[in-house]
Amino acid sequence: MNQEFLRQLLDSVANGRLSVQKAQQDLVHLAMEDIDYAHIDHHRSLRKGFPEVIFGEGKSAEQIIGIMKKIAAQEEVILVTRISEQKALSIKKQFSHVHYDNQARMIIYQKSALPKTGRGTIAVITAGTSDIPVAKEACLTAEATGNVVKSVFDVGVAGIHRLFSHKSLLEEAKVIIVVAGMEGALPSVVAGLVRCPVIAVPTSVGYGVSLGGLTALFGMLNSCASNVAVVNIDNGFGAGFLAASINQT
Amino acid sequence: MNQEFLRQLLDSVANGRLSVQKAQQDLVHLAMEDIDYAHIDHHRSLRKGFPEVIFGEGKSAEQIIGIMKKIAAQEEVILVTRISEQKALSIKKQFSHVHYDNQARMIIYQKSALPKTGRGTIAVITAGTSDIPVAKEACLTAEATGNVVKSVFDVGVAGIHRLFSHKSLLEEAKVIIVVAGMEGALPSVVAGLVRCPVIAVPTSVGYGVSLGGLTALFGMLNSCASNVAVVNIDNGFGAGFLAASINQT
Amino acid sequence: MNQEFLRQLLDSVANGRLSVQKAQQDLVHLAMEDIDYAHIDHHRSLRKGFPEVIFGEGKSAEQIIGIMKKIAAQEEVILVTRISEQKALSIKKQFSHVHYDNQARMIIYQKSALPKTGRGTIAVITAGTSDIPVAKEACLTAEATGNVVKSVFDVGVAGIHRLFSHKSLLEEAKVIIVVAGMEGALPSVVAGLVRCPVIAVPTSVGYGVSLGGLTALFGMLNSCASNVAVVNIDNGFGAGFLAASINQT
Amino acid sequence: MNQEFLRQLLDSVANGRLSVQKAQQDLVHLAMEDIDYAHIDHHRSLRKGFPEVIFGEGKSAEQIIGIMKKIAAQEEVILVTRISEQKALSIKKQFSHVHYDNQARMIIYQKSALPKTGRGTIAVITAGTSDIPVAKEACLTAEATGNVVKSVFDVGVAGIHRLFSHKSLLEEAKVIIVVAGMEGALPSVVAGLVRCPVIAVPTSVGYGVSLGGLTALFGMLNSCASNVAVVNIDNGFGAGFLAASINQT
Amino acid sequence: MNQEFLRQLLDSVANGRLSVQKAQQDLVHLAMEDIDYAHIDHHRSLRKGFPEVIFGEGKSAEQIIGIMKKIAAQEEVILVTRISEQKALSIKKQFSHVHYDNQARMIIYQKSALPKTGRGTIAVITAGTSDIPVAKEACLTAEATGNVVKSVFDVGVAGIHRLFSHKSLLEEAKVIIVVAGMEGALPSVVAGLVRCPVIAVPTSVGYGVSLGGLTALFGMLNSCASNVAVVNIDNGFGAGFLAASINQT
Amino acid sequence: MNQEFLRQLLDSVANGRLSVQKAQQDLVHLAMEDIDYAHIDHHRSLRKGFPEVIFGEGKSAEQIIGIMKKIAAQEEVILVTRISEQKALSIKKQFSHVHYDNQARMIIYQKSALPKTGRGTIAVITAGTSDIPVAKEACLTAEATGNVVKSVFDVGVAGIHRLFSHKSLLEEAKVIIVVAGMEGALPSVVAGLVRCPVIAVPTSVGYGVSLGGLTALFGMLNSCASNVAVVNIDNGFGAGFLAASINQT
Amino acid sequence: MNQEFLRQLLDSVANGRLSVQKAQQDLVHLAMEDIDYAHIDHHRSLRKGFPEVIFGEGKSAEQIIGIMKKIAAQEEVILVTRISEQKALSIKKQFSHVHYDNQARMIIYQKSALPKTGRGTIAVITAGTSDIPVAKEACLTAEATGNVVKSVFDVGVAGIHRLFSHKSLLEEAKVIIVVAGMEGALPSVVAGLVRCPVIAVPTSVGYGVSLGGLTALFGMLNSCASNVAVVNIDNGFGAGFLAASINQT
Amino acid sequence: MNQEFLRQLLDSVANGRLSVQKAQQDLVHLAMEDIDYAHIDHHRSLRKGFPEVIFGEGKSAEQIIGIMKKIAAQEEVILVTRISEQKALSIKKQFSHVHYDNQARMIIYQKSALPKTGRGTIAVITAGTSDIPVAKEACLTAEATGNVVKSVFDVGVAGIHRLFSHKSLLEEAKVIIVVAGMEGALPSVVAGLVRCPVIAVPTSVGYGVSLGGLTALFGMLNSCASNVAVVNIDNGFGAGFLAASINQT
Repeated sequence: MNQEFLRQLLDSVANGRLSVQKAQQDLVHLAMEDIDYAHIDHHRSLRKGFPEVIFGEGKSAEQIIGIMKKIAAQEEVILVTRISEQKALSIKKQFSHVHYDNQARMIIYQKSALPKTGRGTIAVITAGTSDIPVAKEACLTAEATGNVVKSVFDVGVAGIHRLFSHKSLLEEAKVIIVVAGMEGALPSVVAGLVRCPVIAVPTSVGYGVSLGGLTALFGMLNSCASNVAVVNIDNGFGAGFLAASINQT
Repeated sequence: MNQEFLRQLLDSVANGRLSVQKAQQDLVHLAMEDIDYAHIDHHRSLRKGFPEVIFGEGKSAEQIIGIMKKIAAQEEVILVTRISEQKALSIKKQFSHVHYDNQARMIIYQKSALPKTGRGTIAVITAGTSDIPVAKEACLTAEATGNVVKSVFDVGVAGIHRLFSHKSLLEEAKVIIVVAGMEGALPSVVAGLVRCPVIAVPTSVGYGVSLGGLTALFGMLNSCASNVAVVNIDNGFGAGFLAASINQT
Repeated sequence: MNQEFLRQLLDSVANGRLSVQKAQQDLVHLAMEDIDYAHIDHHRSLRKGFPEVIFGEGKSAEQIIGIMKKIAAQEEVILVTRISEQKALSIKKQFSHVHYDNQARMIIYQKSALPKTGRGTIAVITAGTSDIPVAKEACLTAEATGNVVKSVFDVGVAGIHRLFSHKSLLEEAKVIIVVAGMEGALPSVVAGLVRCPVIAVPTSVGYGVSLGGLTALFGMLNSCASNVAVVNIDNGFGAGFLAASINQT
Repeated sequence: MNQEFLRQLLDSVANGRLSVQKAQQDLVHLAMEDIDYAHIDHHRSLRKGFPEVIFGEGKSAEQIIGIMKKIAAQEEVILVTRISEQKALSIKKQFSHVHYDNQARMIIYQKSALPKTGRGTIAVITAGTSDIPVAKEACLTAEATGNVVKSVFDVGVAGIHRLFSHKSLLEEAKVIIVVAGMEGALPSVVAGLVRCPVIAVPTSVGYGVSLGGLTALFGMLNSCASNVAVVNIDNGFGAGFLAASINQT
Repeated sequence: MNQEFLRQLLDSVANGRLSVQKAQQDLVHLAMEDIDYAHIDHHRSLRKGFPEVIFGEGKSAEQIIGIMKKIAAQEEVILVTRISEQKALSIKKQFSHVHYDNQARMIIYQKSALPKTGRGTIAVITAGTSDIPVAKEACLTAEATGNVVKSVFDVGVAGIHRLFSHKSLLEEAKVIIVVAGMEGALPSVVAGLVRCPVIAVPTSVGYGVSLGGLTALFGMLNSCASNVAVVNIDNGFGAGFLAASINQT
Repeated sequence: MNQEFLRQLLDSVANGRLSVQKAQQDLVHLAMEDIDYAHIDHHRSLRKGFPEVIFGEGKSAEQIIGIMKKIAAQEEVILVTRISEQKALSIKKQFSHVHYDNQARMIIYQKSALPKTGRGTIAVITAGTSDIPVAKEACLTAEATGNVVKSVFDVGVAGIHRLFSHKSLLEEAKVIIVVAGMEGALPSVVAGLVRCPVIAVPTSVGYGVSLGGLTALFGMLNSCASNVAVVNIDNGFGAGFLAASINQT
Repeated sequence: MNQEFLRQLLDSVANGRLSVQKAQQDLVHLAMEDIDYAHIDHHRSLRKGFPEVIFGEGKSAEQIIGIMKKIAAQEEVILVTRISEQKALSIKKQFSHVHYDNQARMIIYQKSALPKTGRGTIAVITAGTSDIPVAKEACLTAEATGNVVKSVFDVGVAGIHRLFSHKSLLEEAKVIIVVAGMEGALPSVVAGLVRCPVIAVPTSVGYGVSLGGLTALFGMLNSCASNVAVVNIDNGFGAGFLAASINQT
Repeated sequence: MNQEFLRQLLDSVANGRLSVQKAQQDLVHLAMEDIDYAHIDHHRSLRKGFPEVIFGEGKSAEQIIGIMKKIAAQEEVILVTRISEQKALSIKKQFSHVHYDNQARMIIYQKSALPKTGRGTIAVITAGTSDIPVAKEACLTAEATGNVVKSVFDVGVAGIHRLFSHKSLLEEAKVIIVVAGMEGALPSVVAGLVRCPVIAVPTSVGYGVSLGGLTALFGMLNSCASNVAVVNIDNGFGAGFLAASINQT
């Protein structure tokens, strides 16, 4: 609630510059206008530290190009997620500074690299080989937003000594992203070993009662370790962005 | 298909002792009668090595007593599962040789202990303290059916070194029963360490998306380790019986 | 158990006040203590910065007292979650330094308050009045682990100006916990306004297709804002612990 | 129940013009015949104010053409929903006055535009760009049934000030259709700001636990705002028709 | 709080009877009042035409009384939904003008009856006798918000002539609320007969695959009639409020 | 109400003993009688061969008595299903001819037994002892509607020779009702042996992934035998009524 | 294989034209024939009155041809369900007497038409046009098994007078098959009008919360009419076979 | 926990060879290092008796070839599951000793056949013809791991005499794998007849409420026979591996 606005309005009524009728109408809209006012002079990249990210799925190459052009006029970096190679090719013809990663299915447009501003390293770990594309999306997002990222792949719980051979990375990290499908048990084991926050990313890898990733998701939400945060299935981007948010706040 | 039966019937037709009409009628029922014949002289405890087990839930104390009396006339041991303390008290008044375990909610009626006939030890492990009642049901079942059972409780994956301190038990066992709720990750870790079959028992311990044990169940079915067999949620009895079946075949 | 304890033990060995044999025995117990129904993970406070937290549901008062006594011998603070008032009364008779919060259904045992070691403020926000118990569990956990916590209740999206009047708290926080049931829309709105990580806690408040909190949970996992971490339904403790982990790493 | 019909029948029995047997038979069918009678001389467009709409999915182009020809003989306007571009091309060859919208995947056959008969404006709002096709289906339906429609796209809750900049449209509308996928939070926010009915349309936009739109649907049904009506996932047509029904009654 | 109150306050400022400072303070409370466990949205009755409704479930009698006192200071009418008889008795001791309906489980506090301002009649129909409590909640809500309501109970599709005998009510209504459990088929039949909007309310009446009302809900959302709006399971209040919103806009 | 009643009424009109006006009024009530909380469908026994059956759940004893009185004025038999012993006692005080079966939780009101009109025997079979209450409901319903019923209990597939010893009953039956919980496999086996229709009734007997009967239900719907009809979980009444419908058409 | 074949074989044995050994061998094949990938159940047409039906989905054209050849050696009629046009073409090259229906996706192989042996007419009704393929499968199955079938399509509840104009068919039928997708309401309405058994077939027609037919299925199982039998989603074959079983027993 | 390691460390501290600071650091890592140490000199094929199996789905041919080359350097046999014919062709070009089974979609790389080391025969049984591919995967896995395997296909419960004709195989087996889709009833029947463990494999064969195999899975988990172990849907590999584990321990 904007006290100053309110005081001025009432002053105007008191000294007759504003009619009661007009003031009454303004006050009915009070809740809305306050919010409006608060955000008119704030840009998203000021508010959130990073420009809007484009969700590529369900948008045409033309729509994406249009949005990118508007953002590019004001920003240094743009991310487009879940975008097919074919669409990416069309986009690459329109922009320089564009890199497409076909595992992560992601476009990174970057006039120049952002400085590394995070408090420490973000570690990205996968349980299996098939989880790598999702992990790559997390890596690229965290890097593009200005973080140092290190990754280790295929260290799932069925041969748990593979994980333990990377313990120095676990200890060094400020945030750990753990990507796993099937039963999704790895985040619990990792989180049981460290003090820092662990972001668990369920993947749709598996079949039968993996239920497209729901089983891994539910397992992670039920983790008996308590420093575990969970994001949506296959949401490598969200995990990378959240890790950046933790590492940079 | 009983060839001998068939030959005799046709002989009877050939030599006129059986009319075509009667033989025709008999042959229509062939599939049923064959099965009938095969099992008439086989008792369940001969066929399966153990008498029928009584599922206590949804039966009155009177019904259970009635069934027990009939079985007790021919057998050395009877198990009743999922039975309340109150019903158990009524039953104890009718039989000697009855023990009631109030954690496992199980009655063991035993004229004399069965000899230990299994090939080795059955290990029973739980992830948490709250999983103990289900584990107890498994222990009692496996013991009553003539097996040596050893158990370790509360060694879940959030502090995984607790499990490794019991490595010798894992290596000694012919079958391992792992009981776990919440994310149900322990069976994968255990099965990744051993060669013997691991029976995973999901429990309904947990809240929210533990979904009454479905999450643990699905996680176990998706185990990235391959020597894992799964039974129904909270089915300690089934796990104990299956372990016995494996250990004694 | 903590670093200080460890240093003193080793000093005693170094200067001969403690025999190697006795120290060895102590250190075995350091990692874990087996009291039949529980394997207490004493190593945890070294590894994770906070001792094991006791999940009260499904444990008897006697079991909880037994575990608390073992932990209390080595630690300054113990948390017991999801514990009924009745069990809490039995426990209070056995320990001084015990506080029970009947909204959060939580015991905090604290020999002395932990120093505030977090990097900033943790904000806890609820959408409705009925979400307060879960929020309280988060507040108490975050405070007990050494953080400054501020809370605002009942500022859900159906009257969104209520939220905006607390804008300065949103901007001040290093981590924001948002607790909401029903459609679970508040975390998206909050996360859209800030840069710091937002921990979304779905609650089981609602009826019909709130599905015991699943709808709020799924909504939060699908948030169109990207700095959102999700925990299990009604898991105030987990949110508080995760926030502490973020704020203190 | 048609009293007049009943009186005449009984009169006929009383004066012998109708046998008891025949009257008995007629009365057995009374419940049905009454209904039959009531509707035999009522056409759908008289009863409902608009002719039958053709659901294109699962019908061949030939079937659709056949149905359209019968309706076109008596009506000014025909809508065909969920129809592919390919089928639409076949249909266009058979009729003049046919417009196909390939975003909405809809055919509008219109001999002449219906007069605008609604009480006010219908507003159509989407949370994201990917929700536009469903919104278009709603717009076209509401317009074809004789309403003034205004639309605003991509004003979701993650940047909520975008919505507030359109507040005059919100205040002007007699009915607001809000189309949203993912967490489906926008209808709650909109409905919290206005007095008029809000029709929430969940879309299948999203992935993972968006569950093909179920999460958005359930969120909308749990809205903490009370002036919210919900329709099936991706049912832009139904929303447009319902809005027309509200606006024109 | 209403337009009249606002006009008087501004008049007082305009003619100097009220200081700007005092008016400013009053207007801040106009938007919202914070009583620790609730943020009361006084602005709502300006914005939405009706004061905040109290969801009784999960709130103590003391909390409800506290909230009611704050609202009652400014409003003519208050509704409390989903409230037990026991809590209602405590509340009745604190307020006059309170009526409790034990079928609808609802409190209506009304200093004086609101004038009937709707455009026409709201009809409320149930499929069975067991659906009546939900229907009553809808009736009371629609009446309390200033509408004429007529109701017919137990006219489900298994004896469909029962419905047709109430044809004139169907034709007279501006909005029809249809309450049904089990297979939830009645709204489709009703909506097929009329032009006005039909609000379908699924109930949790039934067993087995009624799934607590989900089957009725999904059936209604799939209605082959298009003028059907759906609300949450057992949400009689929402249906009544939505009907009022339609009837009064 | 039945054909005989109708014939007599019309005879009275034909021979002048009854006025047209009075007969008209009687016939309006014939179709339906409105007692505020219920629309009694008197026409049903003409249309369907059996009067309306009262679903007891969610109705008060008073409501049931009211409905029974109206039906009893015109019919020979009334069934009330899903009714507690306590309510049944209240009802027994108001009517003679009432029998309450406390396993089936059903009231049978019968002035005189209906003649046996079915084409043959209806067999009712259960897989287990716990399925008997549902089976009893089916038996009583089929008997009350005028059929010869024979039953065999506890012949489930885990000891399949038990079933085969009853093969003469299987062959004699015109319809077989098979009641089973847990995995619901018995109907497939039975239907594979016979030619007549098999009505499968899933029960909620079981735990864990029996999912309250959903697993048995889905198994029955997927039966690899083709002469299987399925009804709702625990719906013994429906199975009995459907069997009667098959046997008596 | 049928009774006639059996009688002739036994006659030959009785009068010495066939040796006991040869007849024995023939009769072993009578019960079952093993062709590596299938155990053909020749005994079925004796036991069940109709030979084994081949489920075409997931079998190669070669496998189907192999099975058909074995059956054709002994039977007059063979049905193959869920078979693509492409496979059907391969099969047609191998057999005369084969008809393929591309709506029903079914092969009917028939040396000569079976005599009509049912007690009456089987009616097949659909709610919509898109439900016709499933209805066709039911029609063809019921006809091929020796029944008179009449059908009416597109008479769903949104224009319920369309149904009533076919009331003579409803009254004539011994069994009615009702095929409906979306909300699946039609079977309840039909069953409420007639005395004979109604077989409800849910279809996967619809979108969103039609959930691939689950909503229609659940609605039908919850029908407030009691003479309703339900089969699996899209299971036209099962409905036709069940109807035949009812009509011919 | 490695006692020897601990003693040596403390000895080093006691005699000054190790500083307190360094020892303190080592002890913090104690839990991890112990595990590390335990497995550093253990290879998977030593620990589990069989080298790592490659899950082919979601891996490129190149990735699989890379992994195979590393394993082949040390092992006699490699299995690759869920691999398409196309990828298999690329792999065959790189290795001799490779066999691809296109029903099982599996590669068996075998320098020389493993000796048969199991205690007895493993039987593999299917309910239908469409279940054969999954069964083949089980057969090949169990054979490749050194077991004698016998199989019988298409003996489901709808013609149960087919099963009984293979009674001697059932009695001979040490482990029985039963593969079934649709209602999944066969494992219960088989397990009711034998004493040895039965591994139930649900398949995704079926439609409608077979729910992609969930119904068969849940049915098997609810089996009323107790010697039943269940694996994931279509998991023939897991069943074969588990059977080997049982047969070879």
